Amino acid sequence: MGEAVGTNEVFGYAAKDKAGHLAPFKFTRRAAGPEDVTFKVLHCGVCHSDLHQIRNEWKNSKYPMVPGHEIIGTVTEVGSAVSKFKVGDTVGVGCMVHSCHQCDSCEKGSEQYCEKVVWSYNANYPDGTPTYGGYSTQMIADEKFVLRIPDNLPKDAAAPLLCAGITVWSPMQYFGMNVKGARFGLVGLGGLGHMAVQFAKAFGMHVTIFSTSPAKEKEARELLGADDFVVSKDEEAMKAKAKSIDFIIDTVAAKHSLDPYIAALTTNGKMCLVGMPPDSLEIMPAMLTSGRKLVAGSAIGGIKETQEMLDYCGEHNITCMIENLPLSECNTAMERLEKNDVKYRFVLDIEH
Amino acid sequence: MGEAVGTNEVFGYAAKDKAGHLAPFKFTRRAAGPEDVTFKVLHCGVCHSDLHQIRNEWKNSKYPMVPGHEIIGTVTEVGSAVSKFKVGDTVGVGCMVHSCHQCDSCEKGSEQYCEKVVWSYNANYPDGTPTYGGYSTQMIADEKFVLRIPDNLPKDAAAPLLCAGITVWSPMQYFGMNVKGARFGLVGLGGLGHMAVQFAKAFGMHVTIFSTSPAKEKEARELLGADDFVVSKDEEAMKAKAKSIDFIIDTVAAKHSLDPYIAALTTNGKMCLVGMPPDSLEIMPAMLTSGRKLVAGSAIGGIKETQEMLDYCGEHNITCMIENLPLSECNTAMERLEKNDVKYRFVLDIEH
Repeated sequence: MGEAVGTNEVFGYAAKDKAGHLAPFKFTRRAAGPEDVTFKVLHCGVCHSDLHQIRNEWKNSKYPMVPGHEIIGTVTEVGSAVSKFKVGDTVGVGCMVHSCHQCDSCEKGSEQYCEKVVWSYNANYPDGTPTYGGYSTQMIADEKFVLRIPDNLPKDAAAPLLCAGITVWSPMQYFGMNVKGARFGLVGLGGLGHMAVQFAKAFGMHVTIFSTSPAKEKEARELLGADDFVVSKDEEAMKAKAKSIDFIIDTVAAKHSLDPYIAALTTNGKMCLVGMPPDSLEIMPAMLTSGRKLVAGSAIGGIKETQEMLDYCGEHNITCMIENLPLSECNTAMERLEKNDVKYRFVLDIEH
Repeated sequence: MGEAVGTNEVFGYAAKDKAGHLAPFKFTRRAAGPEDVTFKVLHCGVCHSDLHQIRNEWKNSKYPMVPGHEIIGTVTEVGSAVSKFKVGDTVGVGCMVHSCHQCDSCEKGSEQYCEKVVWSYNANYPDGTPTYGGYSTQMIADEKFVLRIPDNLPKDAAAPLLCAGITVWSPMQYFGMNVKGARFGLVGLGGLGHMAVQFAKAFGMHVTIFSTSPAKEKEARELLGADDFVVSKDEEAMKAKAKSIDFIIDTVAAKHSLDPYIAALTTNGKMCLVGMPPDSLEIMPAMLTSGRKLVAGSAIGGIKETQEMLDYCGEHNITCMIENLPLSECNTAMERLEKNDVKYRFVLDIEH
């Protein structure tokens, strides 16, 4: 404990350029200050955005880049002003490590929309210090961006809650998609989608999964508890769902038509996009006006609601379905992720 | 008063085919029943949808068609079960004359989304009787679809409230676009738009008008009280509005890009389409996700909220800016409407 203790030697895996190959990398993190929590990283989830960014697919990559923003570990040191955490606590850090705390978004607990937000990697603190993510042995973060992980949750399977989980939880709360007895639809059953299904079931909703892969039906019903499964390429099956779904979360990151899903919404139905297709999507205005429907978008979630989600997951024993891989196999994770060969999230084992 | 009094000889103007020419037309309305209000029509607004429908542009026209759904008049007779109106009252009928009163939409006061709604013209009652609109000397309607017009409002200038007014009022209420001090944007300054501006000002909002016509600026500011005016073709001016508008109502019925307006929305901003462009509109998903923005659609409004709007207009002396024409010049109204040569709504004088 005590005051800043100087820079810290950390071992991680980094991409050196847009080829995106991850290689062992030694680096130092910024000195821990009085408000900082230092923790030994145990597990880090592998998000599709890690793949996009190591390859500079969003055109804003900074190298060397240590990816990872679903980070869980054990506190090893806390600054003198830290009040919420102590050595030995299990904690997590998600996508953000800094924001202005003064703007309207910050005041409303939506730090992710702060103009000055600093992401957990591929970013810089206001003083220019680069941020490095969780494919590494140690994290240092302002306690305001550190989350408490409920003790009953497995540390590895809880890691993806910090991005995949909150990304669907936040719009489900904000847009009121948590109504017991309502009909919920999920488009795209992957890392984000399988969390949305679990939340929707926990909220007491009837869940329909829309997927391009008929092969996913058995598991969707048996493991995730989905009530219905529609192969989205089947036009007749889609038409049969017309005006039957109250809320839809769409996690698909590729170009796709929204109209069949808008048609599936009831009057006053709401659909929220959480994927980020790089292309424009088309909407027929009459599809919206004829039933007062809305299409929205949402990005991750704020710190307060992330803690609420984690606490809810602790109470309801909700975690991600994961496949563990050692940190040294992070390139394998990326290759398989590119082929969607994962159910439903890779988590890197940093400790062993 | 009393029970059904047989069919009624009515004089109006009707289109006989998709050429859309309106000619004098004598017809009978259905017999008035115990729940019906009969009224002498004094004024009827001319809505752009009248033009679409006399020409079969929505591919569902029934001829002969007597258009008109912004209808105001004086009650001449009420059925024995009518409780809300008496002879001599000033009343109005908007776009609807019947709905099921049993579905979820009806129960929520959103009859316009009822699957069995019957429009005021170009439609049929459940028994097959055709409906005829307000380009005619007399109306008969179930009192549940009859609105009370505040005495202090001029009858001609109040008529377009029944469609143009409620079409923007309803989403402004439903989507919470009535926050004092908030920043409101209006896209497309016509019949609907000039009502949205007046409501927004009455709600205490800062109003920006986005228009393709620089010529409209002076009147928009001086007559309608707009606080700001942006020529939407001016890309630099549009960019300067980035993240500055909380709510947008978009009344444009032609194909246009939504992205510049979504860019103008603040975080958590809301945009509602009330026009019905026949083509798909493109949206970049990241424009929505990066600020939790939403794009919705809305169609007219329910009966209860229409009455609330009329009462509000009475209290705040809000009416439409209109140009009166005699019923016999309804074809002139259509020709000029097609050229957008109207500020901001034609109202047909039926009485004289």
